[in-house]
Amino acid sequence: MCVNGAEALLRTLADGGVEVLFTNPGTTELHLVGALESVPELRGVLALFEGVVTGAADGYARIAGKPAATLLHLGPGFAYGLTNLHNSRRANSPVVNIIGDHATFHTAFDPPLNSDIAALGGWLRGPVRRPEDPAGAGPDGAATLAAALEPPGQIATVIMPADVSWSDAAAVVGAPAQPRSAPAVPAQVSTQIADVLRGGEATALLIGGTALCETGLLAAGRIAAATGARVFQELYSNRVEHGAGLPSFPRLGFYPDQVLKQLHGVRHLVVAGTKAPVSFFAYSNQPSLLVPEGAQTHILAEVGQDAVAALDRLADLVAPDTSAPVTEPHRPALPSGPLTLQNWADVVAALLPERAIVIDESVSSGTTLATATAGSARHDVLMQTGGAMGDGLPLAVGAAVAAPDRPVLALVADGCAMYTLTALWTQVREQLNVTNVILNNRSYAILRQEWKYFSNRPSSVDPGGNPLFDLANPQIDFVGLASAFGMPASRATTAEQLAEQLTQALHQPGPHLIDAVIPAAA
Amino acid sequence: MCVNGAEALLRTLADGGVEVLFTNPGTTELHLVGALESVPELRGVLALFEGVVTGAADGYARIAGKPAATLLHLGPGFAYGLTNLHNSRRANSPVVNIIGDHATFHTAFDPPLNSDIAALGGWLRGPVRRPEDPAGAGPDGAATLAAALEPPGQIATVIMPADVSWSDAAAVVGAPAQPRSAPAVPAQVSTQIADVLRGGEATALLIGGTALCETGLLAAGRIAAATGARVFQELYSNRVEHGAGLPSFPRLGFYPDQVLKQLHGVRHLVVAGTKAPVSFFAYSNQPSLLVPEGAQTHILAEVGQDAVAALDRLADLVAPDTSAPVTEPHRPALPSGPLTLQNWADVVAALLPERAIVIDESVSSGTTLATATAGSARHDVLMQTGGAMGDGLPLAVGAAVAAPDRPVLALVADGCAMYTLTALWTQVREQLNVTNVILNNRSYAILRQEWKYFSNRPSSVDPGGNPLFDLANPQIDFVGLASAFGMPASRATTAEQLAEQLTQALHQPGPHLIDAVIPAAA
Repeated sequence: MCVNGAEALLRTLADGGVEVLFTNPGTTELHLVGALESVPELRGVLALFEGVVTGAADGYARIAGKPAATLLHLGPGFAYGLTNLHNSRRANSPVVNIIGDHATFHTAFDPPLNSDIAALGGWLRGPVRRPEDPAGAGPDGAATLAAALEPPGQIATVIMPADVSWSDAAAVVGAPAQPRSAPAVPAQVSTQIADVLRGGEATALLIGGTALCETGLLAAGRIAAATGARVFQELYSNRVEHGAGLPSFPRLGFYPDQVLKQLHGVRHLVVAGTKAPVSFFAYSNQPSLLVPEGAQTHILAEVGQDAVAALDRLADLVAPDTSAPVTEPHRPALPSGPLTLQNWADVVAALLPERAIVIDESVSSGTTLATATAGSARHDVLMQTGGAMGDGLPLAVGAAVAAPDRPVLALVADGCAMYTLTALWTQVREQLNVTNVILNNRSYAILRQEWKYFSNRPSSVDPGGNPLFDLANPQIDFVGLASAFGMPASRATTAEQLAEQLTQALHQPGPHLIDAVIPAAA
Repeated sequence: MCVNGAEALLRTLADGGVEVLFTNPGTTELHLVGALESVPELRGVLALFEGVVTGAADGYARIAGKPAATLLHLGPGFAYGLTNLHNSRRANSPVVNIIGDHATFHTAFDPPLNSDIAALGGWLRGPVRRPEDPAGAGPDGAATLAAALEPPGQIATVIMPADVSWSDAAAVVGAPAQPRSAPAVPAQVSTQIADVLRGGEATALLIGGTALCETGLLAAGRIAAATGARVFQELYSNRVEHGAGLPSFPRLGFYPDQVLKQLHGVRHLVVAGTKAPVSFFAYSNQPSLLVPEGAQTHILAEVGQDAVAALDRLADLVAPDTSAPVTEPHRPALPSGPLTLQNWADVVAALLPERAIVIDESVSSGTTLATATAGSARHDVLMQTGGAMGDGLPLAVGAAVAAPDRPVLALVADGCAMYTLTALWTQVREQLNVTNVILNNRSYAILRQEWKYFSNRPSSVDPGGNPLFDLANPQIDFVGLASAFGMPASRATTAEQLAEQLTQALHQPGPHLIDAVIPAAA
């Protein structure tokens, strides 16, 4: 079979397990779009903005447990998509970016869209390849996919010059990548840490990343029950199993003093699947590293190592006969009255369906969510991992593409929704089962909160009155926005309305949007 | 006066002539937001997405003729804004980016939002500075501004660590930048090219960049009238004066064969203010450099040199007693019937008010605009210079901020509008006098056109039916989108409706949107 470079690349990726290509293509990608018709195993999903393309790829990878792929238009298209790839990088999602470039003979003339594409790939700290002839398209595709799958997962990029895409590649198709499993933690690490736990000094166990699945959570619960160690969950995670039948652990706080209070008195901090806690932002009167003074940090499993197996082994050592206490099924009663920071989360917790995927980009509105949903039906939670706003609506696209049989509930703050609004268009186009709840406080409330938290802020500034924190002038009609994309939408200002609208949205197929108007914390 | 680093930076920029700070700030920029209150000469304009921030800065710089500034949130905020900065770079707009970063002591801990910000600044091919202490904030700000203003103008970036912003800078304020004028072209260049023009061989004059102002256009018109040289205008320009009382020259075409046909028979190509023509994209059967075989290229003025003075001097040499033929005022009659690719431009040409600023991101719908408006009231046209979609609505924001007394007419293709839709929010917030006309063909029509143009496209693909070129599933209700941001909006499907709605929008203060439904070319 004789194929062109474009088809050689796509065929290689499909053979390697890539099933979906999220894209917003342009002229330099036309032969790749054409090649899609010859590789029907690869489904093209269109978005109107590259931040949606990349955020959807991230959501897909997190839920499917498979590599995701994007197809983007030269440097400027890649640039639009970088921010959510930053979130992906922090989520350790395996993502292959295919960037169409000018033909090899054309770049020397520096046409308007020309730029240093490799520099953008490098910003994501992943490898970048660029086949210089069509025979290299398949092998470079295979190598890029293999790099993306390297534990814990990374963002790998292949730049496809247009003439490499359109020229004959003979029968060259790259060898499919072999998925690699996460390397095991040496047994003696668990043994040493078991000794620490047996020593009886105050110990905390911080778990994150891949450890936040059922097996990891249960192992952590056993360790805690047997040794008295307190368990904490990292603040922002790529995927967390949550709900009835699982142990529920507190998340570390956002602010340094909150974390230091949580870890007060701890002499040993055991870390699995994440890093020792670091403040999200810096403050002049607070430390960056949030390990209590005098406490010793023990790494049970680095990011990228098999944290679940390490936790399991540790549990077998220190808690051979202990089972983990788990949260009994319980749901809050449906609340009533005007929406508040607490009661909206109770409505969600009361109504969350089985096997839901919850996208949590709730920012300052979401502080009570994890506790409220601890006894709800079992679900997965995907969070904003890189701190960059705008991945909530796209994550929902990708999650719903990955799991069409599961309900997706996207909880997205109003400010966040405005970065990647056209994700709603793709949700309608693909008729995805997503219920978008906009947590609408009509402000950048997190900035008002941050302002108050700084000890050295200029005293002249009134955070409530600063116009740069204010999204109420003009007010944004989210019902109107969703309707303009053909999505059924409604507004809720009371808990009763939210409950009614959420029930309806979750039971009807296809996407919905609820504009939940919730005052920010005073 | 004792100020912190943030105020030292902003004070320095204000002293150097920066008047507006386009921003979407976050926590690492809070002290810069605070400092804004102490530097009232600097006006903060909020946008909800960084692509709007940077596109607005570009539009401001192009119209104000002053340096523009942005304030962006770490690497991920900068990344969202990169694409329109790419357009700015190609427009040679002087832009200073202020990127808030983590405190100097915090980055080593690699918190979630940490990234290599300097790499992003480098992608824009401009200098990047990063003061490491507050005493450096003013001087680094001054140096960054000076770099931005270096002819022809560039994108310069200053990274402000949070502790540099919040710490005491004593009274250190940087020396204000001295705007530099474009370097003159040596006199002998004009003399040599005058000899070429006098030689009588077929000559074409290609003008672009700063040459596309009244003085440059008139000089080119004199040269053409006296020597018989044909004059062409580059395809995409940062700012063009156009309309009655000016010479009107054809723009070079988009496709290689169009350009080679335009330049057929030319023996000498004289270039001023731009580069020798290069194809926008590459095609397997077409050259990249579009200078006819056997023709000699003569550079009258490089990009960044004073092209206007060079043209004027050349005109004085070869056309001392010739005046330029100019277009007489004339307007098309108001057309009637369903909107077409021709008649929408005639409606605009017939109704264009005096001193309008026209933003042209019309892509495939706009091929007849320049000809239609040649006899309209004098206006400026800003185009997409870097080929990256999504700068039309933001350019309109910046242009209207720069010239509140002038009507701004943004002509934006539907696909382009979806990248930076929230520019409409800022237009409403600032009550800018912008009339947005969405040229809505419900497709990526340019891709269908490109598909047909390729000689080596896969024959199996039907461009009309390929779902990745289609924006009609679902259809986008632009009237609903604008209304959701509080903007008066209407839909036009006939020339009469467009004329009526355009008249009304141009005569009412504040922003408006017209959804002009125009079928794509067959």
